[in-house]
Amino acid sequence: MTIITLTTDFGMRDPYVAAMKGVLRRHCPKATIDDLTHDIAPQDILEAALFIEAAIPWYPKGTVHLIVVDPGVGTARRPVAVSAGGHVFVGPDNGLLTLWLMRHKMDWAYQIRPDANNGVMISNTFHGRDIFAPAAAWLADGGAPEALGDAVTSLDKLPLPTTRRDGKGRQAGVIIHIDHFGNCITNIQREGDTDGTIAGTVHVGDHIFPLHTTYGDVAPGAPLALYGSGNRLEIAVNQGNAARQFGLARMMSALLAGAS
Amino acid sequence: MTIITLTTDFGMRDPYVAAMKGVLRRHCPKATIDDLTHDIAPQDILEAALFIEAAIPWYPKGTVHLIVVDPGVGTARRPVAVSAGGHVFVGPDNGLLTLWLMRHKMDWAYQIRPDANNGVMISNTFHGRDIFAPAAAWLADGGAPEALGDAVTSLDKLPLPTTRRDGKGRQAGVIIHIDHFGNCITNIQREGDTDGTIAGTVHVGDHIFPLHTTYGDVAPGAPLALYGSGNRLEIAVNQGNAARQFGLARMMSALLAGAS
Amino acid sequence: MTIITLTTDFGMRDPYVAAMKGVLRRHCPKATIDDLTHDIAPQDILEAALFIEAAIPWYPKGTVHLIVVDPGVGTARRPVAVSAGGHVFVGPDNGLLTLWLMRHKMDWAYQIRPDANNGVMISNTFHGRDIFAPAAAWLADGGAPEALGDAVTSLDKLPLPTTRRDGKGRQAGVIIHIDHFGNCITNIQREGDTDGTIAGTVHVGDHIFPLHTTYGDVAPGAPLALYGSGNRLEIAVNQGNAARQFGLARMMSALLAGAS
Repeated sequence: MTIITLTTDFGMRDPYVAAMKGVLRRHCPKATIDDLTHDIAPQDILEAALFIEAAIPWYPKGTVHLIVVDPGVGTARRPVAVSAGGHVFVGPDNGLLTLWLMRHKMDWAYQIRPDANNGVMISNTFHGRDIFAPAAAWLADGGAPEALGDAVTSLDKLPLPTTRRDGKGRQAGVIIHIDHFGNCITNIQREGDTDGTIAGTVHVGDHIFPLHTTYGDVAPGAPLALYGSGNRLEIAVNQGNAARQFGLARMMSALLAGAS
Repeated sequence: MTIITLTTDFGMRDPYVAAMKGVLRRHCPKATIDDLTHDIAPQDILEAALFIEAAIPWYPKGTVHLIVVDPGVGTARRPVAVSAGGHVFVGPDNGLLTLWLMRHKMDWAYQIRPDANNGVMISNTFHGRDIFAPAAAWLADGGAPEALGDAVTSLDKLPLPTTRRDGKGRQAGVIIHIDHFGNCITNIQREGDTDGTIAGTVHVGDHIFPLHTTYGDVAPGAPLALYGSGNRLEIAVNQGNAARQFGLARMMSALLAGAS
Repeated sequence: MTIITLTTDFGMRDPYVAAMKGVLRRHCPKATIDDLTHDIAPQDILEAALFIEAAIPWYPKGTVHLIVVDPGVGTARRPVAVSAGGHVFVGPDNGLLTLWLMRHKMDWAYQIRPDANNGVMISNTFHGRDIFAPAAAWLADGGAPEALGDAVTSLDKLPLPTTRRDGKGRQAGVIIHIDHFGNCITNIQREGDTDGTIAGTVHVGDHIFPLHTTYGDVAPGAPLALYGSGNRLEIAVNQGNAARQFGLARMMSALLAGAS
């Protein structure tokens, strides 16, 4: 079984996703194509990097992931194909894999030559269709990665917001993503085996969120903090929308205090 | 052919749908996966129940439908697998099948044991990925439903808005869904063989909508009522948006008068 | 390999797309089904015609494209199946193929008889499910097109905004689409071999946009004009949203001056 997944910031209203799917169907008819998302915020590389971190581990190894969030299309940023952690990624070299490569060793990476695509004219504005989709189809079809171009030894890295601990054992971080339900996900990650006791509070501005295990630990409409399904600390309201209720936004500071 | 469909309130922007698809691809590579919708309003079980009623009958019998609208995730609500009317459903037991089970006999139902998933760690907040997707893949792959857990004999029911007739033969109901085009769908259903004469009016507040057969029976921009493709009475504007034009909202009362 | 693509204005929140997919799965189990878009603006035939022009050429020939943007459902507009340029289209005859047929010769067209669908009851409001999906499945399954109904020799045409040249060699057109990134696409198309020198300016109201080759030719946040991936003149802001930044909207006039 050969799977190609699609992750973009294209939205679905325009013909861009459809054109890429058509190219994949022509170049690799045997592939199964899965839409992962086309709703990454336009040109938001951090959001895409977080998406990759949370979604890709659940796919079978050997899957080819076409990731096109590409604010630098047509400039000097390199088109690349990368294998790491058993998964293959095709897209622009602009930091999209920063989080993935913190946890997974890179097996190989190649810069995709524009002319690897058999001389078809390459547009200046849509490399997803003209460079990345043909390369993903090539790899999914069993093509040799080294045929795509020259080997690459290091990739562009995204600067990431960091967390820090103060002298009182408190951990300071920021909200890095607000999801569809209004849950506010931070860059503070669960450490070690904390399946046991969960205690502590999370502070954002004047608001205090008690740490619990799941949404239903508090009454409907009540606020809480918890470690979400990706092991990141998040702020939520049971059956409600925390971002809206408390006016929370990306990059606001969050402080975890009193955690065991 | 083995089909698994997905119906959720997750939206597509976050990695939740992608993670579920990855689990399905790993556990049941032979399945065809169809996105039905991920745009159910967050935690809106009634909207999901109406979606199921209207969409599922068109699928081949034997399809496995993964339905995750789950405000009670992590609480005592049971994860279940249910067969009824020739279709198999996997999701939380919270009323999602209320409308379906009014028309279709339940063949079997099992409560899914958390450890049915071979000892993989179960998150407290994402049973779609950790319990429901593995169970759906198991069933789609031909696994025995009784291996999932204990038999269940009755399911949770959603309280539904009712319709009533007054002494003058008028039928009162409510708007239960507003669709993408602004059509306002009510809980009043077509009765018997009314393919013949259609007559009557629908009243919502001060607005009166004449009953017709299809949108094009009135001029573009003109209001009407009709029985929609799911045999429910709906209020519409030909080539327009009735909800916006008349300020209509879910749960507003609608009165059908003078119907033959 | 048999592919059926779906292009509609249905959105994904309602059960309409799911019902169509179910019909396709029942009538042609072997087909691969690709969602192209369900986000065409409601009842916007021009937007759908532009989508077809830009997306369909990338698909393999022989693909069956189900296109349902159908403001006239239930009226006298004809349901048709059309083959042109090696692709097969099924949908309402309301101008959807106007742009496609300017570039591709029509091989055949048939009006789909309502009773071609084996006597299943046809709703008055959802021909996508009851007429078009069964016909698309029939054709994808290798069914003879002439079995669908009577031959049709000409199709409905959409009136299109035109471009014109003035005595000074300037070309006047209009913005015909604003994409997800805020790029404003015009009806002015690239002519001949202009891969070489690109020069000129585009004027919309008081705003002037210098013509370049790609977004990255100007600084982030700076405006430009360029020929996009569909060879149409478009107005953009590098890494920004031109429509929002300059208050641009569909049908505004655009003037191309000084082009080589």
